[in-house]
Amino acid sequence: MIVIIQCEDRVGLVAAIASVLAKARCNIVSMREHVDLEENKFFARIVVNDVTDPQAIELAIIEVLPVDALVRVNPLPDKNIVVLVTKEYHCLSDILTRNHFKTLGANVQCVIGNHPDLQNITERFSIPFYFVSHENRSKEDFESEILKVILQFRPDYLILAKFMRILSAEFINSFKLKIINIHHSFLPAFIGANPYSQAYKRGVKIIGATAHFVTNDLDDGPIIVQKIANINHSYKLTDLIKAGRENETAALIRAMQLVFEDRVCVYNNKTVVFE
Amino acid sequence: MIVIIQCEDRVGLVAAIASVLAKARCNIVSMREHVDLEENKFFARIVVNDVTDPQAIELAIIEVLPVDALVRVNPLPDKNIVVLVTKEYHCLSDILTRNHFKTLGANVQCVIGNHPDLQNITERFSIPFYFVSHENRSKEDFESEILKVILQFRPDYLILAKFMRILSAEFINSFKLKIINIHHSFLPAFIGANPYSQAYKRGVKIIGATAHFVTNDLDDGPIIVQKIANINHSYKLTDLIKAGRENETAALIRAMQLVFEDRVCVYNNKTVVFE
Amino acid sequence: MIVIIQCEDRVGLVAAIASVLAKARCNIVSMREHVDLEENKFFARIVVNDVTDPQAIELAIIEVLPVDALVRVNPLPDKNIVVLVTKEYHCLSDILTRNHFKTLGANVQCVIGNHPDLQNITERFSIPFYFVSHENRSKEDFESEILKVILQFRPDYLILAKFMRILSAEFINSFKLKIINIHHSFLPAFIGANPYSQAYKRGVKIIGATAHFVTNDLDDGPIIVQKIANINHSYKLTDLIKAGRENETAALIRAMQLVFEDRVCVYNNKTVVFE
Amino acid sequence: MIVIIQCEDRVGLVAAIASVLAKARCNIVSMREHVDLEENKFFARIVVNDVTDPQAIELAIIEVLPVDALVRVNPLPDKNIVVLVTKEYHCLSDILTRNHFKTLGANVQCVIGNHPDLQNITERFSIPFYFVSHENRSKEDFESEILKVILQFRPDYLILAKFMRILSAEFINSFKLKIINIHHSFLPAFIGANPYSQAYKRGVKIIGATAHFVTNDLDDGPIIVQKIANINHSYKLTDLIKAGRENETAALIRAMQLVFEDRVCVYNNKTVVFE
Repeated sequence: MIVIIQCEDRVGLVAAIASVLAKARCNIVSMREHVDLEENKFFARIVVNDVTDPQAIELAIIEVLPVDALVRVNPLPDKNIVVLVTKEYHCLSDILTRNHFKTLGANVQCVIGNHPDLQNITERFSIPFYFVSHENRSKEDFESEILKVILQFRPDYLILAKFMRILSAEFINSFKLKIINIHHSFLPAFIGANPYSQAYKRGVKIIGATAHFVTNDLDDGPIIVQKIANINHSYKLTDLIKAGRENETAALIRAMQLVFEDRVCVYNNKTVVFE
Repeated sequence: MIVIIQCEDRVGLVAAIASVLAKARCNIVSMREHVDLEENKFFARIVVNDVTDPQAIELAIIEVLPVDALVRVNPLPDKNIVVLVTKEYHCLSDILTRNHFKTLGANVQCVIGNHPDLQNITERFSIPFYFVSHENRSKEDFESEILKVILQFRPDYLILAKFMRILSAEFINSFKLKIINIHHSFLPAFIGANPYSQAYKRGVKIIGATAHFVTNDLDDGPIIVQKIANINHSYKLTDLIKAGRENETAALIRAMQLVFEDRVCVYNNKTVVFE
Repeated sequence: MIVIIQCEDRVGLVAAIASVLAKARCNIVSMREHVDLEENKFFARIVVNDVTDPQAIELAIIEVLPVDALVRVNPLPDKNIVVLVTKEYHCLSDILTRNHFKTLGANVQCVIGNHPDLQNITERFSIPFYFVSHENRSKEDFESEILKVILQFRPDYLILAKFMRILSAEFINSFKLKIINIHHSFLPAFIGANPYSQAYKRGVKIIGATAHFVTNDLDDGPIIVQKIANINHSYKLTDLIKAGRENETAALIRAMQLVFEDRVCVYNNKTVVFE
Repeated sequence: MIVIIQCEDRVGLVAAIASVLAKARCNIVSMREHVDLEENKFFARIVVNDVTDPQAIELAIIEVLPVDALVRVNPLPDKNIVVLVTKEYHCLSDILTRNHFKTLGANVQCVIGNHPDLQNITERFSIPFYFVSHENRSKEDFESEILKVILQFRPDYLILAKFMRILSAEFINSFKLKIINIHHSFLPAFIGANPYSQAYKRGVKIIGATAHFVTNDLDDGPIIVQKIANINHSYKLTDLIKAGRENETAALIRAMQLVFEDRVCVYNNKTVVFE
């Protein structure tokens, strides 16, 4: 069993939590605790063995914590996810493959594309694909059709696997800290459109990719994972994009794994990641 | 204050330790706990604020632990070290520089060389250098002279910064887990002499360096840090050695930092490193 | 057009080759030349534009080179390959995905498995799968059935994508420098069976993967690519294997790309890789 | 001997250059050629053995190139440099150490500091230190005193090793592409002041350092080398700065090596680096 706790810090928190677990004869196999002293915030991730009644333990833990504490007790290994895509296949196909072989740590319920390009690969893995075009309609209309699909499945997380439309504040707010995006640059460098063109023009020697939770501020949500790749003068723009793909795939998958294993806490537009 | 604990695992250990700290009104700022389930071993590193009486806390913690527990309560930031060298300067000069600017996390008491080559650089930093030749004498005799120098200083750790003599079991046993060595290969590849020649001949694409505690089994002590560098066909043996130097320096310094910050536990010829 | 040349070194080779190209009004867009002075070997990879008659140029180049020179003039972008697998999916599915989206730089003709486990994923990509069991038969018999399948396709390269059988010298010799294998360790560390168990037991802090050409000496062929991943004490053997998979996939794919783009020369059991 | 050539591209350049070398019975040991097709620019770096008259060869090469070609024939292994610093020691002490042991590929003529803090370490290495304060005087006045010191030495390059003053356009223009700076961020992220504070606030997972030639556009000169370091939530701002130091040192030293070995060409505010 994994216990994630996030609350105001105060003396005695670890003792209180660990005592609850000891009383229940549970063994703490692995524990990570972090205090942000500036913000007086407490974070902990505890892996516990020999649990007989998780719900009772959760209630007992909540009792010893400050009133506003966030507690997640997670006996379920797999999350449900819906993946949104546009045309690029690399992130999606990696997700579909791992899902197929049960190594994703999540269950892909469906894929939604604003272009039909990735229907074929999705269906090869026997996953339903919904084509929801954004063309010739309002953003509101577009998003409401996406929402309709999502509501059929009630996923735990939405994954933007190179989904190239900007979502409205309303949409994002209804999935707060439940949307993970991959941005194809080393944020905050090259924010906005065409980061590879910008990087190419600037002559950088390293390119990056950033997986982050989506918030209302475009490309400015809490960063979960960043990855880089070394490049050099011989890389044309197309080579840069090609090298970037591996990076993007790796960063998004790693972020998904961390989130699905309940290793990520968010506060203050930052993440605590207990790797 | 940092508390390091290593003992047999049992239910309730974290609760017991944290309760001691809570009773003393100490705040746990950062905590890492790890259990090796196969070996039933418990490891924890706890960073504590607001400590008034460290010794009292240490005694109180020992009381709640199994009898054979190892506990280190470390209120002192800096260790004392003696550095042993032969002819290569790169690790030593990095150590001397950081020592000079007080960023090593340790205090270099003296340098011992079995060649006089590094006397000049050592003395430029106002550190005493002892030349102890190994030539024309028995290993016993050689080591006993080194020991005499060391005993003047009573260091916490000995650092073998490219010291190219093999120490006797007797010598090593008198500094158990107190000697850190840098081996110029990615152990266990290229064990023994001339690892770069071996790597060159084999045509590897990556070279490595390994910082480890010294035990009686040559090149087989518990590994603390490993670093690698990418190489290619254009590297001649001399280029390989040159690239290796940066690696060796980085690996040794990192291992020293981890040990000096009390982040390393050893068991079963392996390390737990709370980075 | 790409020209790869490998021969004894002598003064004037670059001038001779470049003059042939200049006479044909071809432009050298990118050129890499390397001489191994110890072995007196010349290697060059030349990317040429504006080629009208590649065959004429090839003949003209051969004329100015030493008699035993190896010359490859490669106007064809895609190689044909046959992939051999056992049970692990990660390398194969990455190959199948890239093949499907035409970004592999090769054309997967078929997959041969000595277990039926990967038939399903292969056929989802509309690639033929041949199950050739090794059980209850001689190695000779087993390999001769594999050969029969291969001969239907006449591939340029065989890819051992976690194929867990050791091939005979006869088999290997009939595909000299045409078989690429992924070994799940940082060769030459942990040669042979169960490298991850060996690495786990030794307590290394970095694991590796090595893509190499297969020769008669097990795990000792010319290394094309090596990749590493950082690990720590919290990795159980299963975590190590999981982390290793990403590494293996990345190393094998990179090696395949380098070979398919004609960037790799072999001599003396080593490779020259013009990245 | 190393030959660096940079000019407009045209068919036959390699043949022309290589023929000059062949006629002189020189052997090309290593050659890298790159053409930027968009800009129609030709770059080459040629390592040549068996040279008897370098000047004659230089003249002969110039004769076969376009009129505006840049040619550097460099028989001298070591450049002369002047290092400018403020208060931070890490880059300077690495430079001084390598200079002392003759592994820098350059000769440090003197160090100029706008604070006296690094006088002691500089003089420990028997290198002259000039304290030129910027306080209570105009930038013009400040720079003219620096210039006076520099003119005594006539260095090939100026190294800004954490020199925290912005130089005037006049100053920079008088050392065009001769000033190398280390910027403590992954440019173009966190341009300007306090990049680590910015990075800390943004919650990035990777920090960077960029070594570049100085031009009039602050932090916008041609990038030579970038390096990164992984960080996480446990890094306070001071830890970030500490981790950054290793990065900065490594990036600056690498850039210096590349420039001193004549591996870097500049055009269009970018670099071609023949590593």
